Amino acid sequence: MDQHFLVIDIGNTNQKIAIYNDAEQLLSLQQVPILTQDLLSEALTNFSIKAGIVSSVGRDNASLFDWLKTQIRLFTCCPELELPIDLCYHTPNTLGPDRIANAVGANTLFPNQNVLSIQTGSCLVTDFVNAQNQYLGGTIAPGLRMRFQSLPLLTAKLPLIEPHPIDFLIGKTTEESILSGVINGYACEIDMLIQRYAEQYSPLKVVMTGGDTPVLEGKLKNSIFAAPNLVLFGLYKILRLNATEI
Amino acid sequence: MDQHFLVIDIGNTNQKIAIYNDAEQLLSLQQVPILTQDLLSEALTNFSIKAGIVSSVGRDNASLFDWLKTQIRLFTCCPELELPIDLCYHTPNTLGPDRIANAVGANTLFPNQNVLSIQTGSCLVTDFVNAQNQYLGGTIAPGLRMRFQSLPLLTAKLPLIEPHPIDFLIGKTTEESILSGVINGYACEIDMLIQRYAEQYSPLKVVMTGGDTPVLEGKLKNSIFAAPNLVLFGLYKILRLNATEI
Repeated sequence: MDQHFLVIDIGNTNQKIAIYNDAEQLLSLQQVPILTQDLLSEALTNFSIKAGIVSSVGRDNASLFDWLKTQIRLFTCCPELELPIDLCYHTPNTLGPDRIANAVGANTLFPNQNVLSIQTGSCLVTDFVNAQNQYLGGTIAPGLRMRFQSLPLLTAKLPLIEPHPIDFLIGKTTEESILSGVINGYACEIDMLIQRYAEQYSPLKVVMTGGDTPVLEGKLKNSIFAAPNLVLFGLYKILRLNATEI
Repeated sequence: MDQHFLVIDIGNTNQKIAIYNDAEQLLSLQQVPILTQDLLSEALTNFSIKAGIVSSVGRDNASLFDWLKTQIRLFTCCPELELPIDLCYHTPNTLGPDRIANAVGANTLFPNQNVLSIQTGSCLVTDFVNAQNQYLGGTIAPGLRMRFQSLPLLTAKLPLIEPHPIDFLIGKTTEESILSGVINGYACEIDMLIQRYAEQYSPLKVVMTGGDTPVLEGKLKNSIFAAPNLVLFGLYKILRLNATEI
């Protein structure tokens, strides 16, 4: 029977549970607001899982993972694990595990090359690995949805607008002004950030992952590789490096 | 005795009270968290004020302005006032009065020219007036401080970082990553937005106003004109156009 691997990514907005086989294939992916023991039990029943890895940047669910540890060998993504990259970060213990996974995923796709990975999730996160496979750090800014949410939260009169694709620059209503300001501004920010990295590290590969790809479609001038499950893939690679006995 | 003019700008973060003379000179400027009747009384005592104008995008203080109307002729900045520009906006009644003032200020500095004005305040607001003196609209996105504030508000684990000027792109700690992500991202967004406008409207003048100028210093590649009090100046111009009997 095939050997399967469990990968769990607890983000600020969504929680993902993925199953890979030992040939790097993603067999199953579920995205839920809150992971439950039922969901995990079902995965353990349906697949032949001996090891798993969890990355959490959201609210912790320690008892769930304590239970999972009684079922399989469970790794927590952290700087102390065996990694294919060197972490040249001054405070590795505050480095988000999703960023480690993101960087590992990008480096696995483009080993021995300068690679910038861009996560468009709750936050807009960039992570850079150079051609010597050294992780040098990156940037964190509010994500697309957070920008829409912050306007009504932190101003007196601006409404909450639901993001959707647009094709104009100049907004002629409040809703259009916010849509253009947030979406075009976000795309502009990503485009110019890529340029700033490319000025310092050339040639540069750029990999993008995360939920905002549809809204950004056709808006970026730079050429990028879309890698929808980069964090999960990075976690899988880290798991395989560390669960060597399985 | 000189004739003086009162200009009040109620923003989301700050409230400003300014006094101009009839030669367009700014005589006094106070910035406070909350405007009080004492402050206004003091201004009315110290200057010879018969007319004023108020722009409010923050929380209303109707009773304060009701009282002020018993003292001077007070205009409220709105699309119905006489303006030097045509408002080609689909919903003028939801157009923020600060944006009208901003556009009028920019058009006064560069009449009969394409001019983009950029407000770096609570929000990052752009407003565009073409060479036919038509206001075409613009964009609204979260401002610099709002971006820092939204990270701890809308994520589980990110801290609130106090903005200060930086000279690096790649952050090597969480604090550095956030500083770079927000500040460099914001500068990148502004730079590329200017380019997008310039692609459609050339030649283009760019005027910038608002509180974030120190943090952005040296970070923008485009050439811009700094106009620290553009909204106040625009309000003053609108007041003079309408208070013709004074």
